[in-house]
Amino acid sequence: MSFIAQPRTLVLPKPLHLRSGSTLSGVRLAYEMYGELNADRSNAVLVCHALNASHHVAGRYEHDPNNLGWWDNLIGPGKAVDTNRFCVIGVNNVGSCFGSYGPQDINPQTGEPWGGDFPVVTVEDWVDAQAALLDELGIQQLAAVMGGSLGGMQALSWTLQYPERVRHAAVIASAPNLTAENIAFNEVARRAITTDPDFHAGHYARHGVLPKRGLRIARMIGHITYLSDDVMNEKFGRLLHERTDFQYTTQDIEFQIESYLRYQGNKFSEYFDANTYLLITRALDYFDPARAHGGQLAKALAVAQAHFLVVSFTTDWRFAPSRSREIVKALLDNGAPVSYAEIDAPHGHDAFLLNDPRYHALVRAYFDGIALRAKP
Amino acid sequence: MSFIAQPRTLVLPKPLHLRSGSTLSGVRLAYEMYGELNADRSNAVLVCHALNASHHVAGRYEHDPNNLGWWDNLIGPGKAVDTNRFCVIGVNNVGSCFGSYGPQDINPQTGEPWGGDFPVVTVEDWVDAQAALLDELGIQQLAAVMGGSLGGMQALSWTLQYPERVRHAAVIASAPNLTAENIAFNEVARRAITTDPDFHAGHYARHGVLPKRGLRIARMIGHITYLSDDVMNEKFGRLLHERTDFQYTTQDIEFQIESYLRYQGNKFSEYFDANTYLLITRALDYFDPARAHGGQLAKALAVAQAHFLVVSFTTDWRFAPSRSREIVKALLDNGAPVSYAEIDAPHGHDAFLLNDPRYHALVRAYFDGIALRAKP
Repeated sequence: MSFIAQPRTLVLPKPLHLRSGSTLSGVRLAYEMYGELNADRSNAVLVCHALNASHHVAGRYEHDPNNLGWWDNLIGPGKAVDTNRFCVIGVNNVGSCFGSYGPQDINPQTGEPWGGDFPVVTVEDWVDAQAALLDELGIQQLAAVMGGSLGGMQALSWTLQYPERVRHAAVIASAPNLTAENIAFNEVARRAITTDPDFHAGHYARHGVLPKRGLRIARMIGHITYLSDDVMNEKFGRLLHERTDFQYTTQDIEFQIESYLRYQGNKFSEYFDANTYLLITRALDYFDPARAHGGQLAKALAVAQAHFLVVSFTTDWRFAPSRSREIVKALLDNGAPVSYAEIDAPHGHDAFLLNDPRYHALVRAYFDGIALRAKP
Repeated sequence: MSFIAQPRTLVLPKPLHLRSGSTLSGVRLAYEMYGELNADRSNAVLVCHALNASHHVAGRYEHDPNNLGWWDNLIGPGKAVDTNRFCVIGVNNVGSCFGSYGPQDINPQTGEPWGGDFPVVTVEDWVDAQAALLDELGIQQLAAVMGGSLGGMQALSWTLQYPERVRHAAVIASAPNLTAENIAFNEVARRAITTDPDFHAGHYARHGVLPKRGLRIARMIGHITYLSDDVMNEKFGRLLHERTDFQYTTQDIEFQIESYLRYQGNKFSEYFDANTYLLITRALDYFDPARAHGGQLAKALAVAQAHFLVVSFTTDWRFAPSRSREIVKALLDNGAPVSYAEIDAPHGHDAFLLNDPRYHALVRAYFDGIALRAKP
């Protein structure tokens, strides 16, 4: 039984200037904090979330005890990231549908929900918003910033946008940018949503509908890329769904993997917002710190002052170990302190969310080291 | 400039009994033949097609000279499969939309197009139909049967269903069955089609519409799986479409890979039939000769009498080399004659359609050997 988490919100006092050129005012951020800030406010750990996650990183809610934080297996009292030592902060990103300012909020220009008109947000914009939140919380420097996947991109970007505010960065199952194939999968998912007749250019709320068909397809595609071929074969293989022989049908479920994907797609379409899906996949597409440096990642990372922990998983084909090694190489080229682990795990990209003993022991050892080390 | 191909059709005199239990009567097959049958009719080579291909395997059409057969780079006078020596036959599979009997034909029970009621067809059914065509052409034994991908499954199945009618089988970029991940990609594509509001349970013709949205998504997903990550990075990388800087949009094209996929999706939706897409992906899902033998592929292949050429491509992640090696191992376990080549090619699954010199030299050498060998 995990501890009780308390969601909070805060409205940023200053406008948020986005990379797209747009400016958002009255930006509301949903966040949670676990553990106590120490006297010199030097023990804060910011956890950045990936696609469909939120500020609910660990613990459970008093009135919804089954709603465990998405990284509860890693973070909490006595856990690898020990909230008896660290004050862990989870922030929901701008553009999300889980409490922070997003497409479901009112566009002050029109008095109607933003919908498809919500401006594009980038990883850098999210980091700016997180930094503004830390300003309000009186936290000048993070003991660590950490995240997996898209969250790892935010952790990496923190070390470049606010190098003096980050002592350690844990970049897990991530990449310095998306490959063409990554973008391609995102694009197919987006097209499934935007060509759903119920999408209405993102203004489905006005029409009293939801583009659930598109969201289902998007989620099914996503799920395939989160899992490894191996784990899919082990979990589902060619097993039939509720029968022992073929029924010969093109439209009904025949294999268990089909049933699983349809279930995941249906569930997702009930709680996730289509405009948020577009915004978050685009933030992934755009992230590319080397771009402003002629594609030279080492140049881009030269400003970083943090110590790095980079972790990848052998069967992750969405963000393959080779992509993590690009980050490690660029850091080493700069003489930056970096620990790298490639965890031999069968679970594909999803491995970063799972309770793999070697992975968790590694994160624990790294965070023990942070706690033992004095503030520089 | 390639030779002129002449499409023909033939209606099978006997009904076709399908694995699903259904029976089709008056089955029309579209086919093409290149080269001359020799006196003892022992030089026929049957070429089986994959997903969106047809009986138009090689040559060009007199009145449509740009419409080259899909394997024209491999098959023709003086080519690797030399039509000066072999009589090559291409057959369009039952259920297709390119001339053979399919969902667009009239269901005799209703007097209307079959549409979504067309019975499920399997690889084994296709092979039966091809065998019935050969009966009509007076060809008792094939010098070789060959195919890539789904076509390779048909070639393999020929050696099991009609072992005495096949001297050689070339099984290229194929697999003994689909993995869970393969089925998953097929299922997402099918769901995109069947949840398109214009699909109408496959009876879109009655409604005067076409489920093009779904077909576009299906084709985009397919395209991603045909190409390797490497070739996508090389061809498209993170290049922007017609600009040098981000325009920050979720719904418009930003990257070249997006433009490419949308183009491919649009093109496909203009010429391919949605019901055919469902049928063909299901035939892929169902193929599994080891299933009737407790999953033991060697047992399933024990009846084969052919000599085998098995070819895979290193970067093919749809039908990975390991899947071809399963076939090779099962054949070797049976002491069957098999040559295996793993071609180091960057192009992913699509490599089997491309003009790779080592691959083509290998096929040429194998078919030279067939021509030199006397009929056993």
